[in-house]
Amino acid sequence: MSNIYGKNIKISIFGQSHSPAIGVTVDGLPSGFAIDFDELRSFMQRRAPGQASYATSRIEADEPEFISGLVDGITCGAPLTAIIRNNDIRSSDYDNIRDVPRPSHADYTAYVKYGEAHDVRGGGAFSGRMTAPLCIAGGICLQLLKREGIFVTAHIIQIGNKKTEEQMISAIEEAKKAGDSLGGIVECAATGLPAGIGAPMFEGMENRIASIIFGIPAIKGIEFGNGFSAADLKGSQNNDAFIFEQVGQGDIKTRTNNHGGILGGITSGMPLIFRVAIKPTPSIAMEQDSVSLSEMKPVKLKIEGRHDPCIVPRAVPCVEAAAAIAIYDALLD
Amino acid sequence: MSNIYGKNIKISIFGQSHSPAIGVTVDGLPSGFAIDFDELRSFMQRRAPGQASYATSRIEADEPEFISGLVDGITCGAPLTAIIRNNDIRSSDYDNIRDVPRPSHADYTAYVKYGEAHDVRGGGAFSGRMTAPLCIAGGICLQLLKREGIFVTAHIIQIGNKKTEEQMISAIEEAKKAGDSLGGIVECAATGLPAGIGAPMFEGMENRIASIIFGIPAIKGIEFGNGFSAADLKGSQNNDAFIFEQVGQGDIKTRTNNHGGILGGITSGMPLIFRVAIKPTPSIAMEQDSVSLSEMKPVKLKIEGRHDPCIVPRAVPCVEAAAAIAIYDALLD
Amino acid sequence: MSNIYGKNIKISIFGQSHSPAIGVTVDGLPSGFAIDFDELRSFMQRRAPGQASYATSRIEADEPEFISGLVDGITCGAPLTAIIRNNDIRSSDYDNIRDVPRPSHADYTAYVKYGEAHDVRGGGAFSGRMTAPLCIAGGICLQLLKREGIFVTAHIIQIGNKKTEEQMISAIEEAKKAGDSLGGIVECAATGLPAGIGAPMFEGMENRIASIIFGIPAIKGIEFGNGFSAADLKGSQNNDAFIFEQVGQGDIKTRTNNHGGILGGITSGMPLIFRVAIKPTPSIAMEQDSVSLSEMKPVKLKIEGRHDPCIVPRAVPCVEAAAAIAIYDALLD
Amino acid sequence: MSNIYGKNIKISIFGQSHSPAIGVTVDGLPSGFAIDFDELRSFMQRRAPGQASYATSRIEADEPEFISGLVDGITCGAPLTAIIRNNDIRSSDYDNIRDVPRPSHADYTAYVKYGEAHDVRGGGAFSGRMTAPLCIAGGICLQLLKREGIFVTAHIIQIGNKKTEEQMISAIEEAKKAGDSLGGIVECAATGLPAGIGAPMFEGMENRIASIIFGIPAIKGIEFGNGFSAADLKGSQNNDAFIFEQVGQGDIKTRTNNHGGILGGITSGMPLIFRVAIKPTPSIAMEQDSVSLSEMKPVKLKIEGRHDPCIVPRAVPCVEAAAAIAIYDALLD
Repeated sequence: MSNIYGKNIKISIFGQSHSPAIGVTVDGLPSGFAIDFDELRSFMQRRAPGQASYATSRIEADEPEFISGLVDGITCGAPLTAIIRNNDIRSSDYDNIRDVPRPSHADYTAYVKYGEAHDVRGGGAFSGRMTAPLCIAGGICLQLLKREGIFVTAHIIQIGNKKTEEQMISAIEEAKKAGDSLGGIVECAATGLPAGIGAPMFEGMENRIASIIFGIPAIKGIEFGNGFSAADLKGSQNNDAFIFEQVGQGDIKTRTNNHGGILGGITSGMPLIFRVAIKPTPSIAMEQDSVSLSEMKPVKLKIEGRHDPCIVPRAVPCVEAAAAIAIYDALLD
Repeated sequence: MSNIYGKNIKISIFGQSHSPAIGVTVDGLPSGFAIDFDELRSFMQRRAPGQASYATSRIEADEPEFISGLVDGITCGAPLTAIIRNNDIRSSDYDNIRDVPRPSHADYTAYVKYGEAHDVRGGGAFSGRMTAPLCIAGGICLQLLKREGIFVTAHIIQIGNKKTEEQMISAIEEAKKAGDSLGGIVECAATGLPAGIGAPMFEGMENRIASIIFGIPAIKGIEFGNGFSAADLKGSQNNDAFIFEQVGQGDIKTRTNNHGGILGGITSGMPLIFRVAIKPTPSIAMEQDSVSLSEMKPVKLKIEGRHDPCIVPRAVPCVEAAAAIAIYDALLD
Repeated sequence: MSNIYGKNIKISIFGQSHSPAIGVTVDGLPSGFAIDFDELRSFMQRRAPGQASYATSRIEADEPEFISGLVDGITCGAPLTAIIRNNDIRSSDYDNIRDVPRPSHADYTAYVKYGEAHDVRGGGAFSGRMTAPLCIAGGICLQLLKREGIFVTAHIIQIGNKKTEEQMISAIEEAKKAGDSLGGIVECAATGLPAGIGAPMFEGMENRIASIIFGIPAIKGIEFGNGFSAADLKGSQNNDAFIFEQVGQGDIKTRTNNHGGILGGITSGMPLIFRVAIKPTPSIAMEQDSVSLSEMKPVKLKIEGRHDPCIVPRAVPCVEAAAAIAIYDALLD
Repeated sequence: MSNIYGKNIKISIFGQSHSPAIGVTVDGLPSGFAIDFDELRSFMQRRAPGQASYATSRIEADEPEFISGLVDGITCGAPLTAIIRNNDIRSSDYDNIRDVPRPSHADYTAYVKYGEAHDVRGGGAFSGRMTAPLCIAGGICLQLLKREGIFVTAHIIQIGNKKTEEQMISAIEEAKKAGDSLGGIVECAATGLPAGIGAPMFEGMENRIASIIFGIPAIKGIEFGNGFSAADLKGSQNNDAFIFEQVGQGDIKTRTNNHGGILGGITSGMPLIFRVAIKPTPSIAMEQDSVSLSEMKPVKLKIEGRHDPCIVPRAVPCVEAAAAIAIYDALLD
């Protein structure tokens, strides 16, 4: 259900920010695959907090323990499960949230859906921390794809309205000082994908990627190829002529890639390109208007605790992970 | 699979542009519901071609025949199936396409996936015509939602780069004259939705809406609330303060709706807002570069036949239909 | 949902006994497959009523019309849909049933679930007639399996407590004269299946076969290999020794096949064997005790109309169809 | 996939007999439910080995650790995950199995499906030990059902061909002495179920129960109500007359319950009754014929280690667990 993704492989994510552990089960992996644990660790460290001066100071070891699905580090065909213990938990930071929902967080909607019993500590199951198990599954899929010559990489193209690295970093530092936050745009490309992957209608590559990508908190938009800017173009400008890779020979390619590697939901053999919009982190230090659920009256809220002024850099591997899962799953059709 | 959508209701679409019929099966509708067939017919006519001077001249009666699921026009609990006969079929228009894929159409990717046997006539199962059965299912869901006080409506906010109706119409007429085409942006709003619908992770409202919306051909992007423009804002600008509907009383609302009615995948009680990007119709009259699949050489392609210069107006009810299905399905959680 | 089966292919059945039509959509068939329509027709005639002197006299032409998924009789990759019109409908036969549920039919449970609106005519969506679309899908899967050297065949091993053909026929004729009915046991075997198909836990061959087989009305039990009689045996009697096909060479087989070709949910390469129990048709001419739903008082019920005294012979191709669908679906894992 | 069950709740089981841990994730539980952990522990102890003189002497603490889904022992709406560490592991017992598959075990079929990499230790993911996480999920569902006044209980009706408790125990002791094993039949009843639960076709209660029940290793058959013995009866004998609970008043019931509480896949309000056939444990001490996979020649196999002569008593709570999951899931439709 809400925590399960996939058609040919099934990713099942569990845990809350402050439960004893978080983790993921992946069913449908091929047996006999030797996971490169060093590579997986490096991949996961890109998502881990506490790396940059401007980032949250919470330290997550985030070392996954693989409790099933492996024999001597090699997949055995059984569902693979990895868990990560939640260690550095300061629940007291979050006491106020039970009563006063944080603007643009899921506190209020979770309360309406799950009632008093829902886990408010650290955002519960809505926490960005839940992207760590996503990255375990995605990191393994990235390795499986690499074996097929398929590479999925994402990068930041914009933070706030800044487009150079230097500007981005100083904007984040300013936001941190101001107790504010910034969003951004991440672009992801998958290269080496053969033509013919995906399906029309509800199993198109766009559908499959979008339906996992929106599982990453804070993502509010996705576009493929030219995306929203295609609306400004004429057909004669946006259409991608078919050509041969080399003049008169080789594979069929398109001269331009406005379609982002997907036509009719199916890969065309051109790089699959999409961009996602990430909203500014809702946790800011500035005082905000909210309501008291117990007293049903307006209150001022000041969120204490440690928070990233910008989660966009940490979202980059999450986007890669999600895309890798969707693409690997489609490849198994 | 690829033709099935939904968790609590299941929409199963079938047919090709030139098969004897197209249609849809909807399982999971409540029994005892009297469909308003006049309203459904009106709704479907908004999608039908041949209404505007600039649109395709193919005439589709598009009168659905309900072959199961009803007794005297009232749902009986059994799966509802409706079919529409394909009558006005001129297959000869499409002879050339088998060999020479149309740029930015699914001809080439369908050929790679399904081989020689795939149905090239009129785009086969990739045809925009397949949105007619989507509109049957969606039209019924719109009626079911209305009964709950929920209204889903979409409108065009941009065609090409034009934003007023007058400009849009003249731009379409110009494109028609030039044998070219235009895309656009459609915005959709659902009002009356209670808070608490949806779920986190992969069953968020964004995931569910996106995974049906990309089933509509030509849609290349979706954004919720502020969407991509949220990337430009600071948290203090993008966050939506919680307030009471009236000062000090009433339901909890947010002062602004930058989040588009969804927080953590769950509805907040504010209007659910999203926008979709529609690429310019790839069928244009101008000569384009393509390849001959049989001779494996570059060729010039000139697409004959009748085609819309702009399918954006006809996409509006399709977006409503898709959104209504996703929302009604979520409401049944 | 209730009308959809399958993991790699999706069978979606629709219709009621007295709706305008019944039918089936099959998604996931390979493209380029030429259906043998004569063979399919022969297969479906084995299910059709009106063939034996003792059977129901309702005449069903049951000629399916293929409305999508084919081009010139060859699968094109799009979902295949076939419909059968319901012609010979005498609704007046069933007037009494709305108020007085027939013992051991679904009339009462359908009423509780779907309310007044449920379709009582001819059993609605619970009718044995719904096995006709199952046989269309199954007949195609049988052809696809045959291409792989896999054959699925079923036969009657018992009607009432009779085990020879002669006894069975005279028992059915006696039951017909008495206005009574008989059940029986059907055995099904799939030969030519490679080892290694299926999966442990909830995707075992037993799970997958059982979950479609119980979609056939009147089936109340299923057993694989020795089934219930394994309970009487010791491990040393029930275990199947591994051997080579020929002394010291060839494929690995088992000396006996008490396991029915499935170990741990996965095929062993031995014939897959199962048996199903079919209850006696609940429609009998004898007076029975029931209740009036409108007056909430006991009443006597006498069912008028034409009914088979024994549907077991007609169930044989349905069992083959269901098994073929489950096996073909598993083969695509 | 293979490890996931359910429509409204999703049970996802993971682990192997000798992996670091086994466990289960349950998504879709209501929030705010206080699990009775003592009751759950008692329930799980009925499944645990080492309780009777005749049972396996492997000691399993089987104390689940709940790593997500709870706050202070109360469900919070997030997926619940519980794990059990595998402690008492003597892998050396199983060295021979990699080369020589045990008759009527899954060793051979797992090898064919997953190759050399599959986990042979203790039966890997095919081990009866995997029913422990099933019992965690099922134990919670039993508590949720009890809250609704629904009780699911199973009992042994036959071990070998013995039907009294005394005979059964001495038969097991004899089998143990002889190094042999016994199967049996377990009957399960669910009482308190309202009428109207389930659906026709592929979501009938029979389909849903069968598709989880066959996830329990060693189960080879299932029958509902009269099941296979219905084949021996006439309609007039097998039909269940509708009556009022008390003469002329009260709920509608049936005089007899040959249908086992299910008509047309939907509960009738009568007790839901089914029986399962459990084959004799394939692990026996006696020498058996098998083959060497590496040398491709016949060999004699003698299985060392500790094994139950009869797992039927331990299967009883597993059957209850599986039935409770299926029924609770259907109740949420």
